[in-house]
Amino acid sequence: MVHMVKRSTANNHDFADLTHIFNPRSVAIIGASEKPGKVGQVIMQNYMDAGFQGALYPVNINAGEKISGYKAYKSVLDIRKEIDLVVIAIPAAGVPNVLEECGKAKANGAVIVSGGFAEVGAADLEEKIKQISKKYKMPFIGPNCLGVMDPRARIDTLFLPTYKIERPKIGGVSFVSQSGSVGSSTLDLISAEGFGLSRFISYGNATVVDEVDILHFLAKDKNTKVIVYYLEGAKRGREFIEVAKEVTKSKPVVIIKGGITETGATAAHSHTASLAGSYESYSAVFRQFGMTEAHELEELIYFAKIFDTQPLVTGNRVAVITNGGGHGVLATDAIYQNGLTFPQLTKESQKELRRRMPPIVNIALPMDVGGEADYKRFGDALEVLSTDQNVDAIMMIALFQTPGADEKLVDAVVNFNNGKKKPLVVVSTGSSYTQSHTKLMESAGVPVYESPSAAAKALAALISYSRYREKAV
Amino acid sequence: MVHMVKRSTANNHDFADLTHIFNPRSVAIIGASEKPGKVGQVIMQNYMDAGFQGALYPVNINAGEKISGYKAYKSVLDIRKEIDLVVIAIPAAGVPNVLEECGKAKANGAVIVSGGFAEVGAADLEEKIKQISKKYKMPFIGPNCLGVMDPRARIDTLFLPTYKIERPKIGGVSFVSQSGSVGSSTLDLISAEGFGLSRFISYGNATVVDEVDILHFLAKDKNTKVIVYYLEGAKRGREFIEVAKEVTKSKPVVIIKGGITETGATAAHSHTASLAGSYESYSAVFRQFGMTEAHELEELIYFAKIFDTQPLVTGNRVAVITNGGGHGVLATDAIYQNGLTFPQLTKESQKELRRRMPPIVNIALPMDVGGEADYKRFGDALEVLSTDQNVDAIMMIALFQTPGADEKLVDAVVNFNNGKKKPLVVVSTGSSYTQSHTKLMESAGVPVYESPSAAAKALAALISYSRYREKAV
Repeated sequence: MVHMVKRSTANNHDFADLTHIFNPRSVAIIGASEKPGKVGQVIMQNYMDAGFQGALYPVNINAGEKISGYKAYKSVLDIRKEIDLVVIAIPAAGVPNVLEECGKAKANGAVIVSGGFAEVGAADLEEKIKQISKKYKMPFIGPNCLGVMDPRARIDTLFLPTYKIERPKIGGVSFVSQSGSVGSSTLDLISAEGFGLSRFISYGNATVVDEVDILHFLAKDKNTKVIVYYLEGAKRGREFIEVAKEVTKSKPVVIIKGGITETGATAAHSHTASLAGSYESYSAVFRQFGMTEAHELEELIYFAKIFDTQPLVTGNRVAVITNGGGHGVLATDAIYQNGLTFPQLTKESQKELRRRMPPIVNIALPMDVGGEADYKRFGDALEVLSTDQNVDAIMMIALFQTPGADEKLVDAVVNFNNGKKKPLVVVSTGSSYTQSHTKLMESAGVPVYESPSAAAKALAALISYSRYREKAV
Repeated sequence: MVHMVKRSTANNHDFADLTHIFNPRSVAIIGASEKPGKVGQVIMQNYMDAGFQGALYPVNINAGEKISGYKAYKSVLDIRKEIDLVVIAIPAAGVPNVLEECGKAKANGAVIVSGGFAEVGAADLEEKIKQISKKYKMPFIGPNCLGVMDPRARIDTLFLPTYKIERPKIGGVSFVSQSGSVGSSTLDLISAEGFGLSRFISYGNATVVDEVDILHFLAKDKNTKVIVYYLEGAKRGREFIEVAKEVTKSKPVVIIKGGITETGATAAHSHTASLAGSYESYSAVFRQFGMTEAHELEELIYFAKIFDTQPLVTGNRVAVITNGGGHGVLATDAIYQNGLTFPQLTKESQKELRRRMPPIVNIALPMDVGGEADYKRFGDALEVLSTDQNVDAIMMIALFQTPGADEKLVDAVVNFNNGKKKPLVVVSTGSSYTQSHTKLMESAGVPVYESPSAAAKALAALISYSRYREKAV
């Protein structure tokens, strides 16, 4: 169902194929090292940890025979085999020479993680590497970035060790970040939340490969189901919007924009050397073309999670089941505040609920199944509500502090969710006992939220995008 | 600095002293049991786990010689000693008789955890226990509630085991909840967040002791520094506001209101048998009288944390230090969106920062100390900024994914925070490695937030309340 998007002609470089960078069969790491703490050592280690299946060539001008058990090279020119991706992790001043060698070695692409270019005023140095890239028609990501991480292709150019940033499991969310700090901490959060990653791309100064090129690539990438961007400014803002407008017809695009206040925009300008545009114009256009805007980092996770796991739905009638009265009240508020509503249950399902629930349960929405409700009662409620034609989606509040909620409830929820009958969001919040159960649900593809308002925001985003898609396609 | 508040004359009962309920020297547990899963067993166990230092009297009509090693009684009348607090955990129908016996035994107060009263339509039964309370001038909390938990007084009437709900450490936040579900899950969250609790009070149907009585008590309670309410409706709304207006002159009061939409209010009415008032009127009055309104459960935690740990400040000039450029941009946006601003640093501190920071660090705000910044560089920045007369508060973004951030940074932050020079909020977000470090900071009294926007909201609440206090006192 992926629509092919026409490549913009105003592209700032004349080569289009990023496949070698994103799905390399061979990788050279320039600056590779065995010295603990060296950037090139961490990257080398991460490639080995990721279990990269292609050829791995450590390159270091001071190298001996081997680095970490792999045959080592003093220069990329010594490799004399096809190189899909070169990862460059050496001080900025040395990058032009090394990049020139990569060009001569006919490398297909590069990731330059090194900082020390336009972001610190060295625009000349950055222009130099841009020209080298042009000359050899060799695209690169960076500089001043973390590069790429992909649990499926098993590539990992992050120069941060896995004990500091956990790597997410394989999944459908691709996360693209101009900023390394937002990128790395969000990658770590994605691991904590337990949902899966397709590709992580931190593109830094965007000297050659920029947000538009990446969007082109992800649009066609069959492993990417949801595209998430942290964007400060876009040098080719208009083109980004044009491409995104096509992409949202087939995939959700979630965007958080940094630099939306005047002072924030100045801050954005100084640290990645790109220009932040007027926020109002961005925000309106995001909405107009079906992009989902996250207003804070929390929302970025809320939205990625629901798009990754739940089917689209255009109706806004949400049935709430809860084992806590107060949370039912808060959920009701959150539903109506987010433009959602309660369904009018059919006579049949009312009758069936009445038959299955004990007399103490009031089946009116929000349906409070009681603090003593166990997996069976929750399961009955889910079953009946999911077959009601007036119910578009379900919010299930499962507080694991209550006597009836345990691991069996997790099984019941996961089983229901696997049926993918109707979109489901779960609200569970608390300390260790709760967290151990939410992790089980999350890792099985159930989106769990810490509050009714978070869950309602996620549902509203899902419904809003579904409606856009219905009209746009 | 606690102002004494004049007791309202419109009070619905004519006894005022809740000290016996909140600081009991002796506790009788009616329904106490050794049978696993029984409510009375869990409460008995929790009292023992809490290490209650007073006399403990298990009461059960079917009791033998002892229950859990304590001398057991068939009736509260058999105890024949002063009883400060009776915890009643038996089916609703039996409560009036037992309560009558408590009155005859001259018990000083009770907590009735049993449900099955007005909230399920049994208004007569509820009226009956109200009359008994009146007759014996014996106040009670509940019914249909979790009761009280206090790590300092070591009382714990919650009928939910500690493995499901962790109990917070001793601290300054008192949390009052009409709803048991919001109460119990928030109590659990408070434990997860690592800040300390003064008193937890879940008051359910508020038949006798209600939100106003509790507010009176907490106003005078020297262990309570911050008062947090989850409120659905208040039978004595006007009096609540009158009392709160006095309390906010000396203590912050944070409120989250459930039932703020029409449908939400209906839901609230059905589950605690109280009337939810018009939200708009509540919300405006909260603001007018210095209460801090939380709009979602997340904000309740944000605000409680900062009020508990940070000094008041009326200035809104917030200096941002960050080890991630993107987070600096988002922090700048969040600061300006929340009515805060950057300070103009003095010439002296600019000079001192320039002297201490490496040339690569741009000392303009948001000050990006770099991904490689360690505890020393962060410490230097904190030291200089905290002595700058133009800086009112500090937001420090410490991303532990970076190479320089480790346990030494935790020590530096905790040491700085212990000096209590200026309000400090920390932003750290991520998975296991980060979480182990944020827990260390939190448990040492540093308020840590998952995003710049959460931290900015907390600072804005602190400043807004501080300004109210300055004018009001």
